[in-house]
Amino acid sequence: MHFFYILQYPHRVKLVLASISPNRTRAKSDAAATLAADFLARASRYATCEAQAHGSEAALLAWLDRQSARTSPFLILLDSRGRQLTSQEFAAQIGRHRDNGTQTLVLAIGPADGWSDAARARAGLLLSFGAITLPHELARVVLAEQIYRALTILAGHPYHSGH
Amino acid sequence: MHFFYILQYPHRVKLVLASISPNRTRAKSDAAATLAADFLARASRYATCEAQAHGSEAALLAWLDRQSARTSPFLILLDSRGRQLTSQEFAAQIGRHRDNGTQTLVLAIGPADGWSDAARARAGLLLSFGAITLPHELARVVLAEQIYRALTILAGHPYHSGH
Repeated sequence: MHFFYILQYPHRVKLVLASISPNRTRAKSDAAATLAADFLARASRYATCEAQAHGSEAALLAWLDRQSARTSPFLILLDSRGRQLTSQEFAAQIGRHRDNGTQTLVLAIGPADGWSDAARARAGLLLSFGAITLPHELARVVLAEQIYRALTILAGHPYHSGH
Repeated sequence: MHFFYILQYPHRVKLVLASISPNRTRAKSDAAATLAADFLARASRYATCEAQAHGSEAALLAWLDRQSARTSPFLILLDSRGRQLTSQEFAAQIGRHRDNGTQTLVLAIGPADGWSDAARARAGLLLSFGAITLPHELARVVLAEQIYRALTILAGHPYHSGH
């Protein structure tokens, strides 16, 4: 009789940068999209990263509901009322999720008029990058850069200490 | 006998986005430079705006000293230990300088290892954009965007309310 052991591969967390992009066309900044994509590509050296655009907050919440309970994503919402973390503290948060078995970590940038109470209630963390208001496309760049920075901090790469 | 009256033209404040860029070559982000230049160009519709790069903090301070006492610039340093203002409060600061006769307002992004005590002592305001650490080129984009946003707020342009 044989026993089959399931090999426990090292856990890998997937990071999803989600944004709410209403259908209405608006002037998009190619340079901002390029910058965000570049930071996300660099972050992908350290963890699986994915960009998602949802047409509305409701679409994002519906997508979350469709995920299986076992792999239900942990949701972090960028929110002006949220907690301000340093880049080191943000990295520590991502590290805890990676080490504690979170399979998908969703970091989402809200619509121009902010998140609904329902979305806030669904979130595991409300995160603020400061008192200033940033346009959506620039907030995406900052979030992508902070994800990259967090992963380099966790990996001991000198990117963070150089800035 | 004639009296010559000096016409008091409406006061115009000049905004200078200064950054410390050491001579050592480093990978520069074209996309970030494009974005910052774009926001500064849009800001120039509302006030004279100028970008300056100084090779060191000492070079910036020497440039400030060379300005005449009458037009001595007001210096705002981006500093993690500084005050956090909302975009509205930042706009109000710029508005006060415009209305109170400041001729040159210098907003400066420091070297990677931060400002010296001498630079901090020279500053009229230490301003923080939040707890996170941003790379120099992205901080420039955020500052340029906040300058543009501030000028639209002062002008009653709907850019700010749309984001």
